[in-house]
Amino acid sequence: MYAARDVRFVERDEPKITKPTDAIIRISATCVCGSDLWPYRGAKPITQPTPFGHEYCGIVEEVGSAVTKVKPGQFVIGSFFASDNTCPICRAGYQTWCLHRELVGGAQAGRLRVPLADGTLVATPAMPPEDLIPSLLTLSDVMGTGWFAADAANVKRGVTAVVVGDGAVGLLAVLSAKQMGAARIIAMSRHPKRQQLAREFGATDIVTERGDDGVARVKELTEGLGAESVLECVATQESMKQAIQSVRPGGYVSYVGVPHGVELSGQDLFYRHLHLHGGPAPVRRYLPGLIEFVWTHKINPGKVFDLTLPLDQVAKGYRAMDERRAIKTLLRP
Amino acid sequence: MYAARDVRFVERDEPKITKPTDAIIRISATCVCGSDLWPYRGAKPITQPTPFGHEYCGIVEEVGSAVTKVKPGQFVIGSFFASDNTCPICRAGYQTWCLHRELVGGAQAGRLRVPLADGTLVATPAMPPEDLIPSLLTLSDVMGTGWFAADAANVKRGVTAVVVGDGAVGLLAVLSAKQMGAARIIAMSRHPKRQQLAREFGATDIVTERGDDGVARVKELTEGLGAESVLECVATQESMKQAIQSVRPGGYVSYVGVPHGVELSGQDLFYRHLHLHGGPAPVRRYLPGLIEFVWTHKINPGKVFDLTLPLDQVAKGYRAMDERRAIKTLLRP
Repeated sequence: MYAARDVRFVERDEPKITKPTDAIIRISATCVCGSDLWPYRGAKPITQPTPFGHEYCGIVEEVGSAVTKVKPGQFVIGSFFASDNTCPICRAGYQTWCLHRELVGGAQAGRLRVPLADGTLVATPAMPPEDLIPSLLTLSDVMGTGWFAADAANVKRGVTAVVVGDGAVGLLAVLSAKQMGAARIIAMSRHPKRQQLAREFGATDIVTERGDDGVARVKELTEGLGAESVLECVATQESMKQAIQSVRPGGYVSYVGVPHGVELSGQDLFYRHLHLHGGPAPVRRYLPGLIEFVWTHKINPGKVFDLTLPLDQVAKGYRAMDERRAIKTLLRP
Repeated sequence: MYAARDVRFVERDEPKITKPTDAIIRISATCVCGSDLWPYRGAKPITQPTPFGHEYCGIVEEVGSAVTKVKPGQFVIGSFFASDNTCPICRAGYQTWCLHRELVGGAQAGRLRVPLADGTLVATPAMPPEDLIPSLLTLSDVMGTGWFAADAANVKRGVTAVVVGDGAVGLLAVLSAKQMGAARIIAMSRHPKRQQLAREFGATDIVTERGDDGVARVKELTEGLGAESVLECVATQESMKQAIQSVRPGGYVSYVGVPHGVELSGQDLFYRHLHLHGGPAPVRRYLPGLIEFVWTHKINPGKVFDLTLPLDQVAKGYRAMDERRAIKTLLRP
């Protein structure tokens, strides 16, 4: 990315092993994240040409001398934060806060250096068939983030869950809530194509109203109580307010996008008696379980990709998402 | 209470059964709550003489025609919110949000009308010996609130817990964390008498520093990580900030006092990755278990009462707490 709305496909030096714990992988598929659109739209100024992308899966080509678990030739998936998976924070399941974490960047490329390879990368049982690759790619971020939204909102068998937001994360939060046994899943969406995918993923009700009207509609659908679990997948003040007002006393609100300008009143949270949990999704925690689900065709999160482009057309992929013509763009090097 | 700092002991009409679900109890002991000090100090104007007190235990004298479980002659304890204990919110353990809840008031008296008696009141196994009455009284609010602080902060065997606040609730939060198996309990306190009681209740470390220095001290005591569980028992912006900064990523912060002027940044909570839960403690949920603990001398929360007065000296009881000469005042009608 050279500047806002200026994404170019250019030749760069091949990545090299720089630490003994690194691995180099050949990217099989990568994609554009909703969070990449913040700088693309100018919300964060780009001061110099910057490699983008943090979602990836591919084949290990080379490993550093200290890497013992990950082997060349394996097909692997990793998170956007490299983690050692052994520190106390990792062991508690918060690998995005690993004491030795490193941000992974520049995955919109043919090859990628992944730090802390043994802790970060999880291998599939074998070389995956072509049709599983989109779904495996989602586990690198967007599906893991949707899963965390459902987990952090304590979705359990029989509950009513509300999902605020119909982006790729929101849609996969619907899929996750369904897998965790929610009896009723209310998706807040005004976009017909996204509503349809939400229904395919398990939404039982679609609410098109927003703000107070949206809250009133959720209350109507829940005998006036509000939902046990609300999954907030937008991260604006308005969406957060809607989420908080849609939960019942003692219920759970999760939030998984970086909040922009969100302020919360302590007294309001107190009198609503809710549980609040969110943060950068600890995708690594869920990787082994979610790989198993994809491998056995139990879930098909790859459906969120409604545009596939060769990597050299990456600029087109950003544009389609920026204009909301595509939910999510998959890129093949 | 006639006005700020004007508490009087006066004759009033005896309470009567007004609904078939009511009970009348003869109060054995009642007390002054930290929250009673807000209006006493003028934070909430008193517009007319108002009966105070919401912590009580005593003997059932009379029950309404629809009361089937609670019987005259039983010794009972109830929460400051009457609840039916059968609605969906009660069944989920949030009786302070019962769909039919009623605030109990005027317990600083000889007799009290308790609404929704069958849902609200829990009887002891037999008539309690005199020495258990202070401890049983704490279960009506302050001990249940300390227990909720520990429960909401997910205190488990082996964790490090920090308790912010050395009032009666904070001290009983220490006791609760100890019962739940915390390996290390850090009490934030500058008051020698309260520090001593915190140690008796199970605190392993006392931190006298506040603000950034207090946070730095907690970090030192936790290998730089922060605590797994932080129990916030003050509810000011400063104490809340200290609590939030003392927790490790993925950890738990609970808050159990009504927040006064507390604003939280969504982005700060996100990047700290914490769990946040609080509200008016659902004391009713814990009553049966805590009665058992007191009855078998497993806990002695009544130690927080360091001043006992006959009810007609109630004004003296308020004054002692206001001037922080007493932690908590017990009143005997």
